[in-house]
Amino acid sequence: MNVKRLSTADANFDAALKALLAFETAQDDRIDQVVADILRDVKQRGDAAVLDYTQRFDRLAAASMDALELGHAELQAALDSLPAAQREALQSAAERVRSYHEKQLMSSWSYTEADGTLLGQQVTALDRVGLYVPGGKAAYPSSVLMNAIPAKVAGVKELIMVVPTPAGEKNALVLAAAAICGVDRVFCIGGAQAVGALAYGTQTVPQVDKIVGPGNAYVAAAKRRVFGVVGIDMVAGPSEILVISDGLSNPDWVAMDLFSQAEHDELAQSILLSPNAEFLDQVAASMARQVEEMPRKDIIRTSIENRGALIQVKDLDEAADIANYIAPEHLELSMADPLPYSQKIRHAGAIFMGRDTCEALGDYCAGPNHVLPTSRTARFSSPLGVYDFQKRSSLIMVSSEGAQTLGKVAATLAYGEGLHAHARSAEYRLKTKPEEAS
Amino acid sequence: MNVKRLSTADANFDAALKALLAFETAQDDRIDQVVADILRDVKQRGDAAVLDYTQRFDRLAAASMDALELGHAELQAALDSLPAAQREALQSAAERVRSYHEKQLMSSWSYTEADGTLLGQQVTALDRVGLYVPGGKAAYPSSVLMNAIPAKVAGVKELIMVVPTPAGEKNALVLAAAAICGVDRVFCIGGAQAVGALAYGTQTVPQVDKIVGPGNAYVAAAKRRVFGVVGIDMVAGPSEILVISDGLSNPDWVAMDLFSQAEHDELAQSILLSPNAEFLDQVAASMARQVEEMPRKDIIRTSIENRGALIQVKDLDEAADIANYIAPEHLELSMADPLPYSQKIRHAGAIFMGRDTCEALGDYCAGPNHVLPTSRTARFSSPLGVYDFQKRSSLIMVSSEGAQTLGKVAATLAYGEGLHAHARSAEYRLKTKPEEAS
Repeated sequence: MNVKRLSTADANFDAALKALLAFETAQDDRIDQVVADILRDVKQRGDAAVLDYTQRFDRLAAASMDALELGHAELQAALDSLPAAQREALQSAAERVRSYHEKQLMSSWSYTEADGTLLGQQVTALDRVGLYVPGGKAAYPSSVLMNAIPAKVAGVKELIMVVPTPAGEKNALVLAAAAICGVDRVFCIGGAQAVGALAYGTQTVPQVDKIVGPGNAYVAAAKRRVFGVVGIDMVAGPSEILVISDGLSNPDWVAMDLFSQAEHDELAQSILLSPNAEFLDQVAASMARQVEEMPRKDIIRTSIENRGALIQVKDLDEAADIANYIAPEHLELSMADPLPYSQKIRHAGAIFMGRDTCEALGDYCAGPNHVLPTSRTARFSSPLGVYDFQKRSSLIMVSSEGAQTLGKVAATLAYGEGLHAHARSAEYRLKTKPEEAS
Repeated sequence: MNVKRLSTADANFDAALKALLAFETAQDDRIDQVVADILRDVKQRGDAAVLDYTQRFDRLAAASMDALELGHAELQAALDSLPAAQREALQSAAERVRSYHEKQLMSSWSYTEADGTLLGQQVTALDRVGLYVPGGKAAYPSSVLMNAIPAKVAGVKELIMVVPTPAGEKNALVLAAAAICGVDRVFCIGGAQAVGALAYGTQTVPQVDKIVGPGNAYVAAAKRRVFGVVGIDMVAGPSEILVISDGLSNPDWVAMDLFSQAEHDELAQSILLSPNAEFLDQVAASMARQVEEMPRKDIIRTSIENRGALIQVKDLDEAADIANYIAPEHLELSMADPLPYSQKIRHAGAIFMGRDTCEALGDYCAGPNHVLPTSRTARFSSPLGVYDFQKRSSLIMVSSEGAQTLGKVAATLAYGEGLHAHARSAEYRLKTKPEEAS
């Protein structure tokens, strides 16, 4: 396996790093046009349009949308059907994810000023949320847990899951995860048509307030288009891992951690930074050896050869600078005493500290969310969490006394902006009218 | 003035309300195409493209981008040039906005489980933020305060403002507000080209991590397009106010509060709910009388006649239900004892409580942000705040003991998803390997 080797000492390192990270996130105009047409049709024709597209794209004919809805009994049966070890692992993961997310709950607050004016922030949950779950080979029950549990912890009253079942094929693990999370309704639909059904509502599918969950390029384009009508989570790019090692880690462990990202997708990106050139050699050798044992070796090889890199850095401080530039989705700090080092990291989706903390633990069951910002968006965005299913309303109750001071300030600024109704509205609350005062 | 009168007792009320609220938020394909071309050009040609479009759209020729940057001295001079009352009002508003927003600052947290595993959330500020400020008649200094102060409170290191100055015309109030907020750099550019410069960076304009601030349809389309490359705030629709009155408010005050929204824009929406038909008559009469005194009477009349309504409700509980359906940007509770009533409101951008609390106080100086979710998006989104300029990274440090339990759960789920590298990576951390255990 041919893995790219870079060194920050190279003259052209900055350009090489930029080229390594370059990923075309541009919208595909053709996909966008197809999606626009589907969305328009679903908005106009509702259930009938969704049924048509489901027949066409998922090769699944149904007489009505009702026939595509799964009942609670069917979800529970899927859970009951699992081998005990899988069922218990799902339940244990769900419990830990719930426990972590409960710490994110925001509460309302307010305070009263000396003149009696009250200011604050009222926190409420979204009423109804749609959860998109991909079908086929990318159907991950862990993704159901990570999207549904924060919504339920936030207090969302109704959680509606859509999952395509191509040719009627259902994934028992996905349905079992839905049962564990208390998903309220499940429809076997997918693609842009499912996004449209959730965003606009149909005769059968209720309109939601926000749509979350991963999907292919059509789903991503549809989410982008309906943003504003409903809320959406991030539009995710390929998954990434950045490992920083002091050079004393087990090369086999680090190689496998890099593979755990690479096996997702040929476009996934796995990068290792270390000041120790010999360690980088060891990891390269380990990768070449271990890849042969991997069921997904072709995906891993393509991902690592096209988008991976082993990068020698001057020292760990320089590694932190590079990490902050990359703003990786997953960052492993495979080193002694990682906690103080983590303070140097300004931009990362999740930080995995210490040689025992492989990313896979976080993907499934450590507790924090595995829906994380990709493609350098950790510069400005955050892991999915309870806060994505809560919202805030400002609270303002100005006392009669407070209105006297605030009214004058507001009127002055409103006149400055040429907004006389604003000014007059504030002046009405003054006990001494401006004309009397002057 | 002909104001629409509705009653929830009308047979067709639900349809009438839906029609009243209907607002076409669809993207304009022509604008979108123009914007796509401008963005592509700015991405490729940088400063040269921005200079070309500034000359074409803003009728402003400049030899270089440097010539379009304003220095701190120029901002300070604008502040010094203001009449004392305006300067003091701006400073007083800024101080109150800062004080409120300081209460929103999120902090990092972590906790350690019994087996020594540490979980948490590290909170950091965005590095660099772009602030779009419209030029011309919609240039509002209050908007500078409301966007810049939360960013600065969050700890954003560099805040870059863009503001078009058509034919070179600058707005002293806007520049003064920038001086008060400590905006770091100001460029006299606007439109999609300014959004492109901030999103991609040019030779002179540094790339930012997020773009906030209001703008026209071209700016909104550009923000939507660059979303993902950088973060954006919401894409705002026309402004709205909903007033709920118990019927004992001063009709002139309520009429003027409705006008204060209507004067923004012909598409703005002002709605009053009250169980008291006589009070609705009084407000209608007051509006007819007072509109004549308003400098923006034409805008107000168009807005009120086309998009406004006076709605008679059965009681205040029904009013709360309607408010939750509308999810208004601004909600005034003009009634006795509004605080307990506010608990019934689940969806609103900001809640103004009591007869003295007109929306204008919140627009300028009460403290909470005036950038609020419009067009029913308060169902899923929140006022702009400090949290829009902070982000979170998950912290996971699994102890050696913790890795033994979590590793087994993760491996079980990973095998279930067909991800063997994930499973193997987790199993490497087990002291008793699976094959030995079995």
